[in-house]
Amino acid sequence: MRAEIAEQPAVLDRILTEGLEEVRRVAERIRHAAPRFVVLAARGTSDHAALYAKYLIEVLLGLPAGLASPSTTTVYGAPGRFADVLYVAVSQSGESPDLVESLRAAREGGALTLAVTNAASSPLAEGAAFHLDVLAGQERSVAATKTYTAQLLTLYLLVDALRGGDRALGADLPGLAARTLELAAHPAVEVAEHLHHAAWIVCTGRGYSYATAREAALKLVETAYLPAHAYSGADLMHGPLAMLDSGTPVVAVVGEGAGGQALDPVVERLRSMEADVLIAGPGGALPTVTGVPEEVAPVIEIMPLQLLAAELAAVRAIDPDQPRGLAKVTLTR
Amino acid sequence: MRAEIAEQPAVLDRILTEGLEEVRRVAERIRHAAPRFVVLAARGTSDHAALYAKYLIEVLLGLPAGLASPSTTTVYGAPGRFADVLYVAVSQSGESPDLVESLRAAREGGALTLAVTNAASSPLAEGAAFHLDVLAGQERSVAATKTYTAQLLTLYLLVDALRGGDRALGADLPGLAARTLELAAHPAVEVAEHLHHAAWIVCTGRGYSYATAREAALKLVETAYLPAHAYSGADLMHGPLAMLDSGTPVVAVVGEGAGGQALDPVVERLRSMEADVLIAGPGGALPTVTGVPEEVAPVIEIMPLQLLAAELAAVRAIDPDQPRGLAKVTLTR
Repeated sequence: MRAEIAEQPAVLDRILTEGLEEVRRVAERIRHAAPRFVVLAARGTSDHAALYAKYLIEVLLGLPAGLASPSTTTVYGAPGRFADVLYVAVSQSGESPDLVESLRAAREGGALTLAVTNAASSPLAEGAAFHLDVLAGQERSVAATKTYTAQLLTLYLLVDALRGGDRALGADLPGLAARTLELAAHPAVEVAEHLHHAAWIVCTGRGYSYATAREAALKLVETAYLPAHAYSGADLMHGPLAMLDSGTPVVAVVGEGAGGQALDPVVERLRSMEADVLIAGPGGALPTVTGVPEEVAPVIEIMPLQLLAAELAAVRAIDPDQPRGLAKVTLTR
Repeated sequence: MRAEIAEQPAVLDRILTEGLEEVRRVAERIRHAAPRFVVLAARGTSDHAALYAKYLIEVLLGLPAGLASPSTTTVYGAPGRFADVLYVAVSQSGESPDLVESLRAAREGGALTLAVTNAASSPLAEGAAFHLDVLAGQERSVAATKTYTAQLLTLYLLVDALRGGDRALGADLPGLAARTLELAAHPAVEVAEHLHHAAWIVCTGRGYSYATAREAALKLVETAYLPAHAYSGADLMHGPLAMLDSGTPVVAVVGEGAGGQALDPVVERLRSMEADVLIAGPGGALPTVTGVPEEVAPVIEIMPLQLLAAELAAVRAIDPDQPRGLAKVTLTR
């Protein structure tokens, strides 16, 4: 897991150099079809990449987007009316049967289909009209890290190409990633030691960073066996706040843009309740470099949290590469 | 909270007798507009009603549906292209500023807008083209119970009317609710005592019942301060399974239909890991009556879990009507 976390700057660079041409080609085809609604289908870590893409699509393209509930197809056999819909399935392995079946049903219902995977010869990639390979190379750790940030960058480049952007925001990411991994290495160990005996933790973020909070929680759960809840900053205020004791650890993902600003009152409230607030972001306990544009910040801001998950597993004497009860490819229907 | 839980059969009956005409009238207008995509916006408990509606819309109407991310409007000011979109905001109070603003933006972007609230003179109700009152009467407890099941039934009746159904499945709900509340009263106390010292709990369900698992977790969190995670049965297998110790309590919502059947392998896996599996549904530790059609089962199957939350609060000497840190109306932006 640590080795794959460290590979991320190189993977991001590979996408920018080797993957961009295909992203532009696919974007051109999608623009030609002019979809009016986007549905994103994914499970687990990939679902957080899909959530990030949902925000990008709504904010940058102005198109309504939703996350699929694959079981409406696989459990209830719903026939869908998918004309004018772009259906995007995101999966590291491209093998999850429920995604393969949902994508097939969407295609039969008239959707334009796109698979974003790390496995070009997978059933999902082969079943879709278009495919984008995230070029992360083989991922051995059960906990997905490099495939996640590779999905994020690929999806960002796709949305940027769809709006006729210049991809400028993505270009610096390999360097920003390398500097963040270096900057966060020691703090992640310190926070891991601080959380050694934590019974549970809350992760929160708003806007683009909500995806980061969700992914951080899943990493802590699956690698360090720490029960971790993720809530958007808004949802946290609607109920879950009640369960926080003074001292409850809360990871708050606070970036430099509007999403980070929108989280400020939540952080203030948490501090007034004497929660143990750990900021992930520039200048925080789990630091990232400054100057990362908000639209691409999720690619960077997850990195200190990946390191935290790996270090907390180490502190707790857990092997993050062999989580109990999990397989690399999960065959849910 | 207990008094409002007990009112639910009467509220369901009121919707069926006094609310149906308006539901049909609104459905007729929506059918005339023939929307092709549905976006649902809500926070907290209402978000779980919206999730249930998403499944109904996809399965029964075959229309793609998504849950809104209000912050794309309120934080990032995204202009949306909402032609052919039905935008449904669900809120008990109708006052949440982010929902009011998101609905306004969707309406300006061309959406047909519908507010489903328990407050006919609220800003949300007044800002939408159509409004449905869920007729639950004033709700005093901070933890929403009767407004939740009222939202579920109202949304079911709407979708049923949109497909030209005969509303037959809803007619028996008041009686089924009354019998379930009676049947589950004592078991809820027993399970609450069993969970007195639980440190955390997982809730799971699939299909329509996934909304129930989410709402059960929120009720346990906000009334009994029990950290509770909800995962769909499929997502649980994709990572969170690793954090379950033998003895971890898991509430599994297992109804009589396809969603319950789809959860069977998950329950089997949980039992093989020696998790402390508590079934919510017919014949379970948190029982409902049998014979509830799956499409409307969420209206009934949450009731033993509402009782559990109230009883667990009592066992833990917490006043569920005064959760710390929460107000009845949450004004997030």
